[in-house]
This record gives sequence, C-alpha cells and structure tokens, in this order.
Amino acid sequence: MTAPTKAELEEQLAALEAERDEHLNDLKRVAADFENYRKRVARDQESLVARAHERLVKALIPILDDLERALEAADEHEEAKLEEGVALVHRSLADLLAREGLAEIETEGAFDPHVHEALLAQPAEDAESGSVLQVLQKGYRLGDVVVRPARVIVAE
Amino acid sequence: MTAPTKAELEEQLAALEAERDEHLNDLKRVAADFENYRKRVARDQESLVARAHERLVKALIPILDDLERALEAADEHEEAKLEEGVALVHRSLADLLAREGLAEIETEGAFDPHVHEALLAQPAEDAESGSVLQVLQKGYRLGDVVVRPARVIVAE
Repeated sequence: MTAPTKAELEEQLAALEAERDEHLNDLKRVAADFENYRKRVARDQESLVARAHERLVKALIPILDDLERALEAADEHEEAKLEEGVALVHRSLADLLAREGLAEIETEGAFDPHVHEALLAQPAEDAESGSVLQVLQKGYRLGDVVVRPARVIVAE
Repeated sequence: MTAPTKAELEEQLAALEAERDEHLNDLKRVAADFENYRKRVARDQESLVARAHERLVKALIPILDDLERALEAADEHEEAKLEEGVALVHRSLADLLAREGLAEIETEGAFDPHVHEALLAQPAEDAESGSVLQVLQKGYRLGDVVVRPARVIVAE
C-alpha cells in the first residue's frame, strides 16, 4: 500500500467535510421535528381528553331531560308516567354505559375472588360449598378492569 | 498563507472524522429517542382516553344502582320511595355533570342567537320585543362550547 498523496488527502478532506455537514443538517432537522411533535402531542392530549368527555357528557343530557320530566310527573302525581319515565331513564343509562364498554359481572356458579367480594357466608343445603347464594350488589367490569366487584353471599 | 503540510492535512482529516462520527452518533440517538417517544405517545393516548372514560363511567354506576332501586320501589308500588329515588338520581346526575363543567344556559332577558334557538315567536303585551317568553328545552354549555342551545319562544 502506498501512502496517499497530498492531492488525495485534500480530496478525502472535502468528502469528509460534506459528510459531516450532511449529518449535522440531518441532526438539526430531526431535532426540530421531534420538538414540534412534542408540542403537538401536548396540545392533542388536552383536546383528546376534552373531546372524550364532551361526547359522554353530551350523551347524558337527554337522560337528565328525561329525569326532569319524570320529576314533573311526580309533582303532578301522575304515577304511571313517573314509572314509565324511570324505566326509560334506566334503559337509556344502561345502554349508554354498555356502549362505553361497561358489563355486569357474572355471578352464576362458583365464587371467584377476582371478581366477587364475599360479604357473608351462610350454610346452604341445596347449594355447593363455595358457590354464590345471593347477589347483594351487582359488580361491573370495564374491558379487563373490574371497576366494582359483585358483592355476594357465599355457601359455606 | 502557506499551504498545509501533509502532516497537517492528516491531522485535519482525523479531526473531521471524529466530528462526523459524533454528529452521526447524535443523529442516531435523537432518531431513536424520537421513535421511542412516538410509541409511548400512542400507548399513552389510548390509556388517557380509557382512564378519562373510566372515571366518568365509574361515577355513573351508583346512579344506575339508585335507578334500579327506584324501579324496585315502582314494582312494589311504593310511590313515595319511587319519587324520592328519582329526586336523588336527578340530583346525583346533575351534580356529576356540573362537576364535569356542564352549565345551564341563561334564558333571562333578551334572545341571544349564539346560545338560544327560537322555535316560535308570539305577540306579548307585557314583554319587550325580542325577549325570551318561555323556555321549551333547557340549553347547556360545556366550558365555552354550546353543547345544546336553549329552545325558546320569543316575544314578537
């Protein structure tokens, strides 16, 4: 291998300089993109949460309307209308929550400590030991999360 | 100015190479940070919306419970208990929505096309022309956003 000539060294220098400048420019560009992205994300997250709320809060307004109508029926002692109104409100709210992913926790069969909470254990002739005898309060899950365990009485 | 010697050129080459490598390493690091940030943001946004929902959906479960109790009272023809239950549910839901930032739109005084919707105009002796005579449906705002205008009858 022969040693590089001065002309070759100068050529290498020019090529390296171009490479260095290119990397530096890329670095500045990526850093600026990153910074802009960070700012946009901060703005987006705020409006994302606000919009998510807005949709749900909006959906609850007609339910509030129906409750007010039911209260008016109660004031006027129109019992049939009051009952009908309450049934309607219940159905609307239950449907809304189901659409949001809320589901009742199953209580048929064996007690499951992951989703049930035993408030009481009672002897039971007909039931298998460790099975759910009675549901005192319904439980709910939202997707995989147990938002409230079902409160139950279990067979001893 | 004297022309650089071969030794000087070689020194410059080594310095440039080090600079180029440093910029390239920085570039790789920033690009990797950016990519990781992007992935984290995507995960965060999902859980952010899910958590925002979870909080609100959770707060609605006791209201659903109260509605179910009211329906049981209706089944057993306990009218007083039913009325009480409906009043309780109404207060709970109204309070919850107020905490979420929902506010009733004012309807006292002059008709305001930004927040009111005129469904009817009626002649009125006692009222000033253009004032709100009667509210047919309450309006609501959430922060600065009119989520539903108040539907009203205006004086001709």
